[in-house]
Amino acid sequence: MAEEVKLFGFWASPLHRRVEIALKMKGVKYEYIEEDLTNKSPLLLKYNPVHKKVPVLVHNGNPIAESLVIIEYIDETWKHNPILPQHPYDRALARFWAKFIDEKAVPALRNSTWGKVKEREVAIGEACEHLKTLENELGDKKFFGGEDIGLVDIVANVVGIWFGVFQEISGLELLTEEKFPKLCKWIHEYVNHTAIKEVLPPRDKLIEYFSPLLGAASK
Amino acid sequence: MAEEVKLFGFWASPLHRRVEIALKMKGVKYEYIEEDLTNKSPLLLKYNPVHKKVPVLVHNGNPIAESLVIIEYIDETWKHNPILPQHPYDRALARFWAKFIDEKAVPALRNSTWGKVKEREVAIGEACEHLKTLENELGDKKFFGGEDIGLVDIVANVVGIWFGVFQEISGLELLTEEKFPKLCKWIHEYVNHTAIKEVLPPRDKLIEYFSPLLGAASK
Repeated sequence: MAEEVKLFGFWASPLHRRVEIALKMKGVKYEYIEEDLTNKSPLLLKYNPVHKKVPVLVHNGNPIAESLVIIEYIDETWKHNPILPQHPYDRALARFWAKFIDEKAVPALRNSTWGKVKEREVAIGEACEHLKTLENELGDKKFFGGEDIGLVDIVANVVGIWFGVFQEISGLELLTEEKFPKLCKWIHEYVNHTAIKEVLPPRDKLIEYFSPLLGAASK
Repeated sequence: MAEEVKLFGFWASPLHRRVEIALKMKGVKYEYIEEDLTNKSPLLLKYNPVHKKVPVLVHNGNPIAESLVIIEYIDETWKHNPILPQHPYDRALARFWAKFIDEKAVPALRNSTWGKVKEREVAIGEACEHLKTLENELGDKKFFGGEDIGLVDIVANVVGIWFGVFQEISGLELLTEEKFPKLCKWIHEYVNHTAIKEVLPPRDKLIEYFSPLLGAASK
Protein backbone atom coordinates (compact mmCIF):
# COMPACT_ATOMS: atom_id res chain seq x y z
CA MET A 1 0.00 0.00 0.00
CA ALA A 2 1.25 3.47 -0.83
CA GLU A 3 1.92 5.33 2.40
CA GLU A 4 0.30 8.70 2.90
CA VAL A 5 2.10 10.82 5.46
CA LYS A 6 1.06 14.40 6.16
CA LEU A 7 2.53 16.76 8.71
CA PHE A 8 0.70 19.84 9.95
CA GLY A 9 3.26 22.19 11.44
CA PHE A 10 4.59 25.69 11.85
CA TRP A 11 8.09 26.54 10.67
CA ALA A 12 9.27 28.34 13.85
CA SER A 13 7.91 25.76 16.33
CA PRO A 14 10.53 23.58 18.06
CA LEU A 15 7.86 20.92 18.70
CA HIS A 16 7.08 20.75 15.01
CA ARG A 17 10.78 20.55 14.14
CA ARG A 18 11.20 17.58 16.50
CA VAL A 19 8.82 15.59 14.30
CA GLU A 20 10.56 16.75 11.12
CA ILE A 21 13.92 15.57 12.53
CA ALA A 22 12.41 12.16 13.37
CA LEU A 23 10.93 11.79 9.86
CA LYS A 24 14.21 12.91 8.32
CA MET A 25 16.18 10.33 10.38
CA LYS A 26 13.85 7.62 9.06
CA GLY A 27 13.90 8.94 5.50
CA VAL A 28 10.09 9.04 5.46
CA LYS A 29 8.62 11.19 2.68
CA TYR A 30 5.69 13.39 3.71
CA GLU A 31 3.49 16.22 2.58
CA TYR A 32 4.00 19.31 4.69
CA ILE A 33 1.13 21.63 5.53
CA GLU A 34 2.18 24.94 7.09
CA GLU A 35 -0.41 26.24 9.56
CA ASP A 36 -1.26 29.88 10.16
CA LEU A 37 -1.40 29.86 13.96
CA THR A 38 -3.58 32.98 14.03
CA ASN A 39 -6.12 31.28 11.77
CA LYS A 40 -5.87 27.53 12.18
CA SER A 41 -7.19 25.36 9.38
CA PRO A 42 -10.40 23.32 9.79
CA LEU A 43 -8.30 20.20 9.11
CA LEU A 44 -5.96 20.91 12.05
CA LEU A 45 -8.95 21.46 14.36
CA LYS A 46 -10.50 18.24 13.09
CA TYR A 47 -7.31 16.23 13.56
CA ASN A 48 -6.39 17.65 16.98
CA PRO A 49 -9.71 18.71 18.57
CA VAL A 50 -8.39 18.37 22.13
CA HIS A 51 -5.35 20.67 21.98
CA LYS A 52 -5.86 22.39 18.60
CA LYS A 53 -2.09 22.61 18.20
CA VAL A 54 0.70 21.66 15.82
CA PRO A 55 2.39 19.31 15.21
CA VAL A 56 -0.08 16.72 13.97
CA LEU A 57 1.04 13.73 11.92
CA VAL A 58 -1.56 12.02 9.76
CA HIS A 59 -0.53 8.56 8.60
CA ASN A 60 -2.88 6.84 6.14
CA GLY A 61 -5.71 8.98 7.49
CA ASN A 62 -4.95 8.39 11.20
CA PRO A 63 -4.08 11.59 13.08
CA ILE A 64 -1.58 11.69 15.97
CA ALA A 65 -0.87 14.74 18.14
CA GLU A 66 1.79 15.64 20.74
CA SER A 67 5.40 15.63 19.58
CA LEU A 68 6.66 12.94 22.01
CA VAL A 69 3.76 10.65 21.13
CA ILE A 70 4.38 11.21 17.42
CA ILE A 71 8.11 10.43 17.72
CA GLU A 72 7.40 7.12 19.51
CA TYR A 73 4.85 6.31 16.78
CA ILE A 74 7.37 7.06 14.04
CA ASP A 75 9.98 4.90 15.79
CA GLU A 76 7.57 1.97 16.14
CA THR A 77 6.20 2.26 12.59
CA TRP A 78 9.46 2.67 10.66
CA LYS A 79 11.86 0.50 12.62
CA HIS A 80 15.16 1.21 10.80
CA ASN A 81 17.52 3.86 12.22
CA PRO A 82 16.05 3.57 15.73
CA ILE A 83 15.43 6.78 17.68
CA LEU A 84 14.86 5.14 21.06
CA PRO A 85 17.44 2.67 22.39
CA GLN A 86 16.62 -1.04 22.16
CA HIS A 87 16.92 -2.18 25.78
CA PRO A 88 13.92 -1.46 28.04
CA TYR A 89 16.08 0.17 30.71
CA ASP A 90 17.83 2.48 28.22
CA ARG A 91 14.41 3.30 26.75
CA ALA A 92 13.14 4.18 30.23
CA LEU A 93 16.10 6.52 30.78
CA ALA A 94 15.54 8.22 27.41
CA ARG A 95 11.83 8.70 28.22
CA PHE A 96 12.73 10.02 31.67
CA TRP A 97 15.04 12.70 30.24
CA ALA A 98 12.62 13.63 27.43
CA LYS A 99 9.95 14.14 30.09
CA PHE A 100 12.36 16.14 32.24
CA ILE A 101 13.14 18.47 29.35
CA ASP A 102 9.46 18.97 28.50
CA GLU A 103 8.11 19.34 32.01
CA LYS A 104 10.98 21.04 33.84
CA ALA A 105 13.60 22.57 31.54
CA VAL A 106 11.38 23.99 28.77
CA PRO A 107 8.97 25.92 31.06
CA ALA A 108 11.87 27.42 33.04
CA LEU A 109 13.85 28.33 29.88
CA ARG A 110 10.74 29.93 28.39
CA ASN A 111 9.88 31.93 31.51
CA SER A 112 13.48 33.07 31.96
CA THR A 113 13.30 34.91 28.64
CA TRP A 114 9.58 35.32 27.84
CA GLY A 115 8.29 35.95 31.37
CA LYS A 116 7.38 39.27 32.96
CA VAL A 117 10.28 40.85 34.89
CA LYS A 118 9.27 39.35 38.28
CA GLU A 119 8.72 35.84 36.92
CA ARG A 120 11.98 35.96 35.06
CA GLU A 121 14.11 36.22 38.18
CA VAL A 122 12.74 33.00 39.70
CA ALA A 123 12.74 31.26 36.32
CA ILE A 124 16.41 32.07 35.66
CA GLY A 125 17.35 30.32 38.90
CA GLU A 126 15.28 27.27 37.94
CA ALA A 127 16.58 27.26 34.36
CA CYS A 128 20.15 27.33 35.69
CA GLU A 129 19.45 24.31 37.94
CA HIS A 130 17.86 22.35 35.08
CA LEU A 131 20.70 23.17 32.68
CA LYS A 132 23.17 21.93 35.33
CA THR A 133 21.19 18.69 35.57
CA LEU A 134 21.37 18.29 31.79
CA GLU A 135 25.09 19.18 31.74
CA ASN A 136 25.67 16.38 34.28
CA GLU A 137 23.54 13.92 32.36
CA LEU A 138 25.42 14.67 29.15
CA GLY A 139 28.78 14.15 30.87
CA ASP A 140 31.44 13.17 28.34
CA LYS A 141 29.01 11.74 25.79
CA LYS A 142 28.95 13.31 22.33
CA PHE A 143 25.14 13.24 22.28
CA PHE A 144 22.54 12.46 24.94
CA GLY A 145 21.93 9.32 22.89
CA GLY A 146 25.64 8.38 23.00
CA GLU A 147 27.64 8.31 19.76
CA ASP A 148 24.63 9.38 17.69
CA ILE A 149 21.52 11.46 18.29
CA GLY A 150 18.45 9.85 19.84
CA LEU A 151 15.15 10.76 21.48
CA VAL A 152 16.65 13.07 24.13
CA ASP A 153 18.69 15.03 21.57
CA ILE A 154 15.63 15.55 19.40
CA VAL A 155 13.55 16.71 22.35
CA ALA A 156 16.41 18.97 23.50
CA ASN A 157 16.26 20.97 20.26
CA VAL A 158 14.75 23.78 22.35
CA VAL A 159 18.03 23.94 24.29
CA GLY A 160 20.06 23.41 21.14
CA ILE A 161 18.66 26.24 19.06
CA TRP A 162 15.60 28.11 20.29
CA PHE A 163 16.91 29.08 23.71
CA GLY A 164 20.01 30.62 22.13
CA VAL A 165 17.73 32.75 19.98
CA PHE A 166 15.64 33.80 23.00
CA GLN A 167 18.81 34.60 24.96
CA GLU A 168 20.12 36.78 22.17
CA ILE A 169 16.86 38.71 21.85
CA SER A 170 16.39 39.20 25.60
CA GLY A 171 20.05 39.87 26.41
CA LEU A 172 20.20 37.05 29.00
CA GLU A 173 23.58 35.32 29.38
CA LEU A 174 22.86 31.99 30.99
CA LEU A 175 23.71 29.18 28.61
CA THR A 176 27.33 30.20 27.95
CA GLU A 177 30.54 28.30 27.18
CA GLU A 178 31.92 29.32 30.57
CA LYS A 179 28.98 28.08 32.65
CA PHE A 180 27.94 25.06 30.56
CA PRO A 181 30.92 23.90 28.46
CA LYS A 182 29.49 20.42 27.82
CA LEU A 183 26.07 21.63 26.73
CA CYS A 184 27.71 24.20 24.46
CA LYS A 185 29.92 21.51 22.90
CA TRP A 186 26.77 19.41 22.42
CA ILE A 187 24.99 22.35 20.74
CA HIS A 188 27.88 22.67 18.29
CA GLU A 189 27.79 18.95 17.44
CA TYR A 190 23.99 19.02 17.30
CA VAL A 191 23.43 21.90 14.89
CA ASN A 192 26.07 20.45 12.59
CA HIS A 193 24.64 16.91 12.56
CA THR A 194 23.37 15.97 9.09
CA ALA A 195 19.86 15.02 10.21
CA ILE A 196 19.52 18.25 12.19
CA LYS A 197 21.25 20.79 9.95
CA GLU A 198 18.89 20.24 7.04
CA VAL A 199 15.79 20.56 9.18
CA LEU A 200 16.69 23.66 11.18
CA PRO A 201 15.09 26.97 10.35
CA PRO A 202 17.66 29.72 9.64
CA ARG A 203 18.72 31.40 12.87
CA ASP A 204 18.32 34.93 11.48
CA LYS A 205 14.75 34.15 10.46
CA LEU A 206 14.02 32.92 14.00
CA ILE A 207 15.53 36.10 15.46
CA GLU A 208 13.45 38.21 13.09
CA TYR A 209 10.25 36.27 13.87
CA PHE A 210 10.60 36.07 17.66
CA SER A 211 12.02 39.57 18.34
CA PRO A 212 8.74 41.52 18.28
CA LEU A 213 6.81 38.68 19.99
CA LEU A 214 9.28 38.27 22.83
CA GLY A 215 9.58 42.02 23.25
CA ALA A 216 5.80 42.35 23.62
CA ALA A 217 5.40 39.31 25.91
CA SER A 218 8.07 40.25 28.42
CA LYS A 219 6.94 43.84 28.98
CA MET B 1 18.94 -15.00 37.22
CA ALA B 2 16.72 -14.31 40.20
CA GLU B 3 14.90 -11.05 39.61
CA GLU B 4 15.15 -8.38 42.26
CA VAL B 5 12.29 -5.89 42.09
CA LYS B 6 11.88 -3.16 44.67
CA LEU B 7 9.25 -0.44 44.75
CA PHE B 8 9.65 2.75 46.77
CA GLY B 9 6.20 4.24 47.28
CA PHE B 10 3.70 5.89 49.55
CA TRP B 11 0.40 4.19 50.30
CA ALA B 12 -1.88 7.22 49.61
CA SER B 13 -0.18 8.30 46.36
CA PRO B 14 -2.15 7.64 43.15
CA LEU B 15 1.12 7.71 41.16
CA HIS B 16 2.57 4.98 43.35
CA ARG B 17 -0.63 2.92 43.05
CA ARG B 18 -0.40 3.10 39.24
CA VAL B 19 2.86 1.18 39.41
CA GLU B 20 1.42 -1.31 41.89
CA ILE B 21 -1.52 -1.97 39.54
CA ALA B 22 0.90 -2.56 36.62
CA LEU B 23 3.04 -4.97 38.67
CA LYS B 24 -0.09 -6.75 39.88
CA MET B 25 -1.38 -7.13 36.29
CA LYS B 26 1.91 -8.77 35.35
CA GLY B 27 2.07 -10.89 38.47
CA VAL B 28 5.55 -9.56 39.26
CA LYS B 29 6.65 -10.13 42.87
CA TYR B 30 8.40 -7.19 44.51
CA GLU B 31 9.65 -5.87 47.78
CA TYR B 32 7.75 -2.79 48.88
CA ILE B 33 9.45 0.04 50.74
CA GLU B 34 7.06 2.60 52.21
CA GLU B 35 8.55 6.10 52.24
CA ASP B 36 7.97 8.73 54.90
CA LEU B 37 7.42 11.76 52.64
CA THR B 38 8.34 14.16 55.45
CA ASN B 39 11.67 12.41 55.91
CA LYS B 40 12.65 10.71 52.68
CA SER B 41 15.13 7.84 52.86
CA PRO B 42 18.72 8.23 51.60
CA LEU B 43 17.97 5.38 49.17
CA LEU B 44 15.04 7.24 47.57
CA LEU B 45 17.19 10.37 47.18
CA LYS B 46 19.97 8.25 45.66
CA TYR B 47 17.64 6.50 43.22
CA ASN B 48 15.68 9.60 42.17
CA PRO B 49 18.08 12.53 42.65
CA VAL B 50 16.35 14.71 40.04
CA HIS B 51 12.78 14.71 41.38
CA LYS B 52 13.27 13.11 44.84
CA LYS B 53 9.78 11.61 44.57
CA VAL B 54 7.98 8.29 44.74
CA PRO B 55 7.35 6.03 42.94
CA VAL B 56 10.73 4.56 42.09
CA LEU B 57 11.09 1.03 40.75
CA VAL B 58 14.47 -0.64 41.15
CA HIS B 59 14.93 -3.68 38.92
CA ASN B 60 18.13 -5.69 39.46
CA GLY B 61 19.76 -2.55 40.85
CA ASN B 62 18.59 -0.20 38.06
CA PRO B 63 16.35 2.63 39.30
CA ILE B 64 13.49 4.09 37.22
CA ALA B 65 11.40 7.11 38.21
CA GLU B 66 8.16 8.71 36.90
CA SER B 67 5.04 6.53 36.93
CA LEU B 68 4.38 6.63 33.15
CA VAL B 69 8.00 5.76 32.38
CA ILE B 70 7.91 2.92 34.92
CA ILE B 71 4.69 1.47 33.46
CA GLU B 72 6.15 1.42 29.93
CA TYR B 73 9.27 -0.25 31.35
CA ILE B 74 7.18 -2.90 33.12
CA ASP B 75 5.22 -3.53 29.93
CA GLU B 76 8.39 -3.92 27.85
CA THR B 77 10.18 -6.10 30.41
CA TRP B 78 7.38 -8.53 31.29
CA LYS B 79 5.56 -8.95 28.01
CA HIS B 80 2.60 -11.15 29.04
CA ASN B 81 -0.74 -9.47 29.87
CA PRO B 82 0.09 -6.35 27.83
CA ILE B 83 -0.80 -2.96 29.31
CA LEU B 84 -0.31 -0.95 26.10
CA PRO B 85 -2.08 -2.07 22.90
CA GLN B 86 0.01 -3.87 20.29
CA HIS B 87 -0.51 -1.70 17.18
CA PRO B 88 1.59 1.49 16.97
CA TYR B 89 -1.46 3.67 16.28
CA ASP B 90 -3.40 2.30 19.25
CA ARG B 91 -0.28 2.73 21.37
CA ALA B 92 -0.04 6.36 20.26
CA LEU B 93 -3.68 6.98 21.23
CA ALA B 94 -3.13 5.39 24.66
CA ARG B 95 -0.04 7.54 25.22
CA PHE B 96 -1.94 10.64 24.05
CA TRP B 97 -4.73 10.09 26.61
CA ALA B 98 -2.33 9.19 29.41
CA LYS B 99 -0.52 12.47 28.73
CA PHE B 100 -3.82 14.36 28.60
CA ILE B 101 -4.82 13.00 32.00
CA ASP B 102 -1.46 13.87 33.55
CA GLU B 103 -0.97 17.28 32.01
CA LYS B 104 -4.53 18.60 31.74
CA ALA B 105 -7.06 16.67 33.84
CA VAL B 106 -5.01 16.00 36.98
CA PRO B 107 -3.87 19.61 37.59
CA ALA B 108 -7.43 20.91 37.07
CA LEU B 109 -8.99 18.24 39.29
CA ARG B 110 -6.42 18.96 41.99
CA ASN B 111 -6.87 22.73 41.87
CA SER B 112 -10.67 22.41 41.84
CA THR B 113 -10.54 20.82 45.29
CA TRP B 114 -7.11 21.68 46.74
CA GLY B 115 -6.80 25.21 45.41
CA LYS B 116 -7.39 28.50 47.22
CA VAL B 117 -10.96 29.83 46.79
CA LYS B 118 -10.10 32.07 43.81
CA GLU B 119 -8.13 29.39 41.95
CA ARG B 120 -10.86 26.85 42.56
CA GLU B 121 -13.46 28.69 40.52
CA VAL B 122 -11.36 28.72 37.34
CA ALA B 123 -10.14 25.17 37.98
CA ILE B 124 -13.69 23.79 38.36
CA GLY B 125 -14.52 25.10 34.88
CA GLU B 126 -11.39 23.52 33.43
CA ALA B 127 -11.93 20.26 35.30
CA CYS B 128 -15.49 20.11 33.94
CA GLU B 129 -14.20 20.55 30.37
CA HIS B 130 -11.55 17.86 30.81
CA LEU B 131 -14.02 15.41 32.36
CA LYS B 132 -16.33 16.00 29.37
CA THR B 133 -13.44 15.21 27.05
CA LEU B 134 -12.78 11.97 28.94
CA GLU B 135 -16.51 11.09 29.00
CA ASN B 136 -16.54 11.47 25.19
CA GLU B 137 -13.37 9.43 24.78
CA LEU B 138 -14.79 6.64 26.92
CA GLY B 139 -18.02 6.56 24.90
CA ASP B 140 -19.66 3.16 25.17
CA LYS B 141 -16.50 1.25 25.96
CA LYS B 142 -16.35 -0.64 29.26
CA PHE B 143 -12.80 0.60 29.91
CA PHE B 144 -10.62 3.21 28.20
CA GLY B 145 -8.60 0.17 27.06
CA GLY B 146 -11.71 -1.49 25.58
CA GLU B 147 -12.96 -4.76 27.09
CA ASP B 148 -10.18 -4.82 29.69
CA ILE B 149 -8.13 -2.20 31.52
CA GLY B 150 -5.03 -0.73 29.90
CA LEU B 151 -2.60 2.16 30.23
CA VAL B 152 -5.25 4.91 30.22
CA ASP B 153 -7.35 3.19 32.89
CA ILE B 154 -4.33 2.80 35.13
CA VAL B 155 -3.33 6.45 34.68
CA ALA B 156 -6.96 7.52 35.27
CA ASN B 157 -6.93 6.05 38.78
CA VAL B 158 -6.88 9.65 40.02
CA VAL B 159 -10.29 10.14 38.39
CA GLY B 160 -11.43 6.68 39.50
CA ILE B 161 -10.75 6.99 43.20
CA TRP B 162 -8.80 9.98 44.47
CA PHE B 163 -10.95 12.72 42.98
CA GLY B 164 -14.07 11.18 44.58
CA VAL B 165 -12.29 11.38 47.93
CA PHE B 166 -11.28 15.01 47.33
CA GLN B 167 -14.84 15.86 46.24
CA GLU B 168 -16.29 14.32 49.37
CA ILE B 169 -13.92 16.20 51.67
CA SER B 170 -14.32 19.55 49.91
CA GLY B 171 -18.08 19.27 49.31
CA LEU B 172 -17.70 19.79 45.54
CA GLU B 173 -20.27 18.03 43.36
CA LEU B 174 -18.74 17.86 39.91
CA LEU B 175 -18.13 14.26 38.95
CA THR B 176 -21.68 13.00 39.51
CA GLU B 177 -23.86 10.31 37.93
CA GLU B 178 -26.08 13.01 36.47
CA LYS B 179 -23.33 15.02 34.77
CA PHE B 180 -20.96 12.20 33.82
CA PRO B 181 -22.91 8.92 33.62
CA LYS B 182 -20.28 7.12 31.50
CA LEU B 183 -17.36 8.08 33.72
CA CYS B 184 -19.35 7.04 36.79
CA LYS B 185 -20.16 3.68 35.22
CA TRP B 186 -16.46 3.32 34.41
CA ILE B 187 -15.53 4.13 38.02
CA HIS B 188 -17.86 1.38 39.22
CA GLU B 189 -16.34 -1.19 36.81
CA TYR B 190 -12.84 0.04 37.61
CA VAL B 191 -12.88 -0.15 41.39
CA ASN B 192 -14.41 -3.63 41.15
CA HIS B 193 -11.86 -4.96 38.64
CA THR B 194 -9.76 -7.76 40.19
CA ALA B 195 -6.38 -6.14 39.40
CA ILE B 196 -7.53 -2.81 40.82
CA LYS B 197 -9.60 -3.85 43.84
CA GLU B 198 -6.74 -5.63 45.55
CA VAL B 199 -4.36 -2.71 45.10
CA LEU B 200 -6.62 0.15 46.19
CA PRO B 201 -6.13 1.74 49.56
CA PRO B 202 -9.32 1.72 51.69
CA ARG B 203 -11.47 4.74 50.91
CA ASP B 204 -12.07 5.61 54.57
CA LYS B 205 -8.32 5.64 55.21
CA LEU B 206 -7.86 8.04 52.27
CA ILE B 207 -10.62 10.31 53.63
CA GLU B 208 -8.99 10.23 57.06
CA TYR B 209 -5.52 10.96 55.64
CA PHE B 210 -6.45 13.72 53.19
CA SER B 211 -9.11 15.56 55.27
CA PRO B 212 -6.76 17.64 57.45
CA LEU B 213 -4.30 18.20 54.54
CA LEU B 214 -6.95 19.37 52.08
CA GLY B 215 -8.61 21.52 54.73
CA ALA B 216 -5.31 23.30 55.46
CA ALA B 217 -4.29 23.69 51.79
CA SER B 218 -7.54 25.21 50.54
CA LYS B 219 -7.85 27.87 53.26
